[in-house]
Amino acid sequence: TPAAVRPGSTEEVRAVVEACRRSGTPLVPQGGNTGLVGGSVPLAGEIVLSSERMRAITDVDLDSGQLTAGAGATLAEVQSAASAVGWRYGVDFAARDSATVGGMVATNAGGVRVFRHGSTRRQLLGVEAVTGAGLVVSRLDGLVKDNTGYDLAGLFCGSEGTLGVVCRARLALVPPPGSMATALVGFHDVSSAVAATGLLRRWVPGLEAVEMVLRAGAEMVAEQTATDPVFDPIPPVQLVVEATGPPDPVEALGAALESLDGVLDAAVATDAARAAALWHVRETHTESIARIGTPLKYDVTLPSSALSHFCATIVGEVTELAPSTTTWIFGHVADGNIHVNVTGYQEEPDEIRRIEHLILSSVDGARGSVSAEHGIGTAKRAWLLVNRCDGDVAAMSAIAHALDPDAICNPNVLLTRS
Amino acid sequence: TPAAVRPGSTEEVRAVVEACRRSGTPLVPQGGNTGLVGGSVPLAGEIVLSSERMRAITDVDLDSGQLTAGAGATLAEVQSAASAVGWRYGVDFAARDSATVGGMVATNAGGVRVFRHGSTRRQLLGVEAVTGAGLVVSRLDGLVKDNTGYDLAGLFCGSEGTLGVVCRARLALVPPPGSMATALVGFHDVSSAVAATGLLRRWVPGLEAVEMVLRAGAEMVAEQTATDPVFDPIPPVQLVVEATGPPDPVEALGAALESLDGVLDAAVATDAARAAALWHVRETHTESIARIGTPLKYDVTLPSSALSHFCATIVGEVTELAPSTTTWIFGHVADGNIHVNVTGYQEEPDEIRRIEHLILSSVDGARGSVSAEHGIGTAKRAWLLVNRCDGDVAAMSAIAHALDPDAICNPNVLLTRS
Repeated sequence: TPAAVRPGSTEEVRAVVEACRRSGTPLVPQGGNTGLVGGSVPLAGEIVLSSERMRAITDVDLDSGQLTAGAGATLAEVQSAASAVGWRYGVDFAARDSATVGGMVATNAGGVRVFRHGSTRRQLLGVEAVTGAGLVVSRLDGLVKDNTGYDLAGLFCGSEGTLGVVCRARLALVPPPGSMATALVGFHDVSSAVAATGLLRRWVPGLEAVEMVLRAGAEMVAEQTATDPVFDPIPPVQLVVEATGPPDPVEALGAALESLDGVLDAAVATDAARAAALWHVRETHTESIARIGTPLKYDVTLPSSALSHFCATIVGEVTELAPSTTTWIFGHVADGNIHVNVTGYQEEPDEIRRIEHLILSSVDGARGSVSAEHGIGTAKRAWLLVNRCDGDVAAMSAIAHALDPDAICNPNVLLTRS
Repeated sequence: TPAAVRPGSTEEVRAVVEACRRSGTPLVPQGGNTGLVGGSVPLAGEIVLSSERMRAITDVDLDSGQLTAGAGATLAEVQSAASAVGWRYGVDFAARDSATVGGMVATNAGGVRVFRHGSTRRQLLGVEAVTGAGLVVSRLDGLVKDNTGYDLAGLFCGSEGTLGVVCRARLALVPPPGSMATALVGFHDVSSAVAATGLLRRWVPGLEAVEMVLRAGAEMVAEQTATDPVFDPIPPVQLVVEATGPPDPVEALGAALESLDGVLDAAVATDAARAAALWHVRETHTESIARIGTPLKYDVTLPSSALSHFCATIVGEVTELAPSTTTWIFGHVADGNIHVNVTGYQEEPDEIRRIEHLILSSVDGARGSVSAEHGIGTAKRAWLLVNRCDGDVAAMSAIAHALDPDAICNPNVLLTRS
């Protein structure tokens, strides 16, 4: 078992970093350890720097809607602190009881409200962190407008622990939600659904989510959960659309849906039970797939212009390459973020590599992102070199070397460090 | 006159940067040259790299609401291209016909819609830029979710040309505005106005602006523009509040104002002429001050908790230091961004320095920002060292050295380069 240290303050983190530099010992910052790409797991003798003793939530400001959270505070703790003063935190996802502020900042965590409120970087007004060179960077005063130099907080966000250790973060809060409405809408094809998404963004104030499922997935969910589909026959493509009010979101959604072209079916929920029934086909997608078998999972973003073509072709391409497989496509269509899950594959490293190569090189060829939310970690380092241009990778490496010259901060993650 | 080059493409920019590196010639990127801190003006033999031949707007995407703009495109050109497809660009300010995309990215330009839509960094989905080391970084595919490494676009944004030359930017658009309502609200003091701002943010969907003026400023505007004030007597503090609908913003604002404590007077506009009359006291502040004399101008942000105290004390402190002066305070209270203008000062470098020192060290002591929007440039380099901690400045310097090792990119701006 590798050693673990549990510093209780920024000054103690600095002392740990200095000791690591002197002894040439690399470290891995670790929060809730909920990541999916191996970013917080020691690989080769790194010590673990745990944030669990830095979990205080302080300086809650009611007027500006801001708070400061220690790296070890969980997402659920931040959400409670925000709700307690009449605000809410704009990021939410299922691992809320384990995932920590330090990890969310390091990975630019997303979740189910990214379309409306943005990912973690958007909430971040400042950080206190210790760089790999032992510098303490700190700007926790919650200054919404501050053009005094580079955006260090934004740079640390998404750096996956490679630049240093995040100790505290100043987070912006968002107003609490009003009433909510949910619609399920059927379309002929992905292009109509993508075009409709663009119009809904302009027409529906308070649009919170636009999620897409395909017919094969809806049939699979109906079978796995023994539930009747909302529409019979099931349309080729369905969108789950959610909006908050005011204005009355049921009325706003209804009016927008009447003006859309290419709508085959539409249902708008007027109560919570019906809303849950409309969400069912999307909410139970992941667990329904898991009943078939452990899937290979890819979390990708396509440019809006390439989304329809990718969705129309990738399933057939994977089937042709690996005939025993089934490919499921669903996700956050308003952000271009698609989950591609593959079941029924042969448990052979070569087949798994071929499938990954087919899907991610197709995404890369369409100028998409091979990692929408999960990051690079150790699992996707080879793909970073494919998906980002040489200049981007060289610039990132130069920045990593500048802030962590001895390569002691998470040196096996994201970049290949010298 | 220093030399100027006008490259027409990213490749030509790279050739210029390489030539500058080989010959040890520094360069200053220049767009519309509308900055206020000397960031785009050659000081010591730099050549000027003009963006005027890189002004194409391409890849306008209707579904996702995005476009790509060359560094030389003006803000007005971006706004027109967005409006032409039923979207709008989220940043606006008075210099729209001159200010360019390259300059707006380099300075993280703000303006009158920052409270609602954020500054330039918030609109920025990617950049193509040439670093001082000659690397071409490029990610222009408009990927809303993309966790593949560091946020290079966000880092270039606000770097004031010190890391390299921005050639193109992928910009996110926002939905067009609906109906609009304007209110003028009087309060006893700044604390009540600040508290009311926090409540309005939570209560009024579509809140676009909350601007503050003080009684002395309102009296000055009434006199300089020969206009009757809206309220008689003029309240100690007034907020101009603007919201867009739906829901009906007149109704939403009216309901919110009835629930606020400490309101002395309130007027809600129901037509454009009345709205202009309510805005008058704020809109004509700058020009009214200019009629008294050329002011010293400071553009600062205070943390929400320090805003009231700063506004209550700074006027008296400046008067005590320089009895011939008058100090005017007004600005974007929802962002904590206050404009401090001083008229009637003695035209002596010592007096000007003393006034600047008093105001900016007061801001710094309150943990505010000495530059909310304008940046550091050459004019405020000494204040960067005061206002940012040593670790922040050292980290910025390390990043500048990593991307521009020969210090050829705007070397006299922002940081002291070796």
